[in-house]
Amino acid sequence: MTNINPVKINSKETAQKFLDSFDTYLFDCDGVLWLGKHLLPHVKETLEFLTKSGKQLIFVTNNSTKSRAAYCKKFASFGIEVTQDQIFSSAYASAVYVRDFLKLEPGKDKVWVCGEAGISDELSLMGFKSLGGTDPRLDERFDAEKSPFLTNGLDPSVRCVVAGLDTKINYHRLAISLQYLQQPQVHFVGTNIDPTFPQKGHIFPGAGSVIASLACCAGREPVYCGKPNKNMLDTIVSAKKLDVARCCMIGDRLNTDVRFGVDGGLGGTLLVLTGIETEDRALEQNSDHPRPKFYANKLGDIYELLGGH
Amino acid sequence: MTNINPVKINSKETAQKFLDSFDTYLFDCDGVLWLGKHLLPHVKETLEFLTKSGKQLIFVTNNSTKSRAAYCKKFASFGIEVTQDQIFSSAYASAVYVRDFLKLEPGKDKVWVCGEAGISDELSLMGFKSLGGTDPRLDERFDAEKSPFLTNGLDPSVRCVVAGLDTKINYHRLAISLQYLQQPQVHFVGTNIDPTFPQKGHIFPGAGSVIASLACCAGREPVYCGKPNKNMLDTIVSAKKLDVARCCMIGDRLNTDVRFGVDGGLGGTLLVLTGIETEDRALEQNSDHPRPKFYANKLGDIYELLGGH
Repeated sequence: MTNINPVKINSKETAQKFLDSFDTYLFDCDGVLWLGKHLLPHVKETLEFLTKSGKQLIFVTNNSTKSRAAYCKKFASFGIEVTQDQIFSSAYASAVYVRDFLKLEPGKDKVWVCGEAGISDELSLMGFKSLGGTDPRLDERFDAEKSPFLTNGLDPSVRCVVAGLDTKINYHRLAISLQYLQQPQVHFVGTNIDPTFPQKGHIFPGAGSVIASLACCAGREPVYCGKPNKNMLDTIVSAKKLDVARCCMIGDRLNTDVRFGVDGGLGGTLLVLTGIETEDRALEQNSDHPRPKFYANKLGDIYELLGGH
Repeated sequence: MTNINPVKINSKETAQKFLDSFDTYLFDCDGVLWLGKHLLPHVKETLEFLTKSGKQLIFVTNNSTKSRAAYCKKFASFGIEVTQDQIFSSAYASAVYVRDFLKLEPGKDKVWVCGEAGISDELSLMGFKSLGGTDPRLDERFDAEKSPFLTNGLDPSVRCVVAGLDTKINYHRLAISLQYLQQPQVHFVGTNIDPTFPQKGHIFPGAGSVIASLACCAGREPVYCGKPNKNMLDTIVSAKKLDVARCCMIGDRLNTDVRFGVDGGLGGTLLVLTGIETEDRALEQNSDHPRPKFYANKLGDIYELLGGH
């Protein structure tokens, strides 16, 4: 928690100060750039303006359901050109963690996935075979005497369970994931802690909610790879050789995005109010979450205040 | 935690002491009387012996998937005659809690169930209309734009969510339960905390694991009604007008059954080793769980040691 009051970006001067303070901007995506399938106003123009101003743009998302390649397509669908090496997702960070920190061997060690295609796609790109995930046999109602994942025995090559958001989560997936988690030598990795995510005017259960169920029955906690965990930042800083003091994290959540920037020692943070937070929350001093250095009604305000030049 | 060493029932003298100490025995069922579909040795004979000795027998189960009526049938399938008023399940205790503690009105207030038939059956017997539960429309894959539970709007009569074990749990059930739990006026009741349950040589996710997922995304904890929560004991003591000092809880879990007896101030507890606990665990002094007053390899030892008379 910082004692300096967050600066609202609502004038040419505050926007210019924001621009001069950083070389690299790390963006959360959903709630900052778009809401579901709707691009927020002047986002495209702001990103173009920052690029023209010589800034480096990096996109950091806790969404583990899509691979980075699939994320590029999402940007392209909004007419925004982004390359895969600008994107860091919790699924990718989890795969990096499995390879570089757990030192599992591609081609030999396998991973049980309790989550969507983004996780297995990223693991596959690194040469890891994954089991579970979107396997349609897991869509069948669970029966301990019929599940092929039990009747054929557990795969002894599985060395890790990676769990994340899965909108096809069911008892079958939970039960088999638990069988692997009961083996003490099997590592437990969670993509991200977000308990919920907003969609179409509703709040739905997020990765954290799926992982909480597994953590409860397995009696142990995972290592988390997404924001605000430092594993995510370590992955980015190492890949991009960043000067953290000249980096700014831009997000719509105090407890993940702003915390990520503050805990990671970044030069600054910007909270935008197009997601789940309010101006009151941005300004309040609360030991539950850190305060941002800057906040703005929306990301597009940067362009609206400066882009006219 | 008590400092008196647990007494092992392994002689006529220790068994007689156990018999003389209590008038009422409260039995956990799974792991004590049976394992899944298999009755444990000399259980029927022990129950008959206790009844002939003038003891009152009460059956207390955290299994919320079956109603008390369905439980009677399970006893009958083993040739054991038990009446419904001898059975207290976490589903029944939850329904009593909804009626007597939350004071919801049957016929007016409704309950959203995230769990199996035992919960809605018990609520229905009290006149409460429940929604969700085993409704087959919840078996469909969740789609925010198609789910009838969203497109038709939430039911404003729902005043409580009761959650328990559901082996058909899926994202659809979690997502709709969360919509109700986001309303602060909707109460949140959990049948029981057990994180797992044993079945056919495996350990599977229990009620606690399902509830943990909801608690995480809803950002709040439920009131639990099953063992070891006092709500369950209050329900039994009030219905049966028991002298707790002359009651003994018999179970296979230190953290639910023995804790239930100790926290409830019962005269004693008996841990049987036919479930998930070991003799070492029964004897160890550990701040994580209380110690039992008595323990035995199996319930049938009572009959084997005394029934020959």
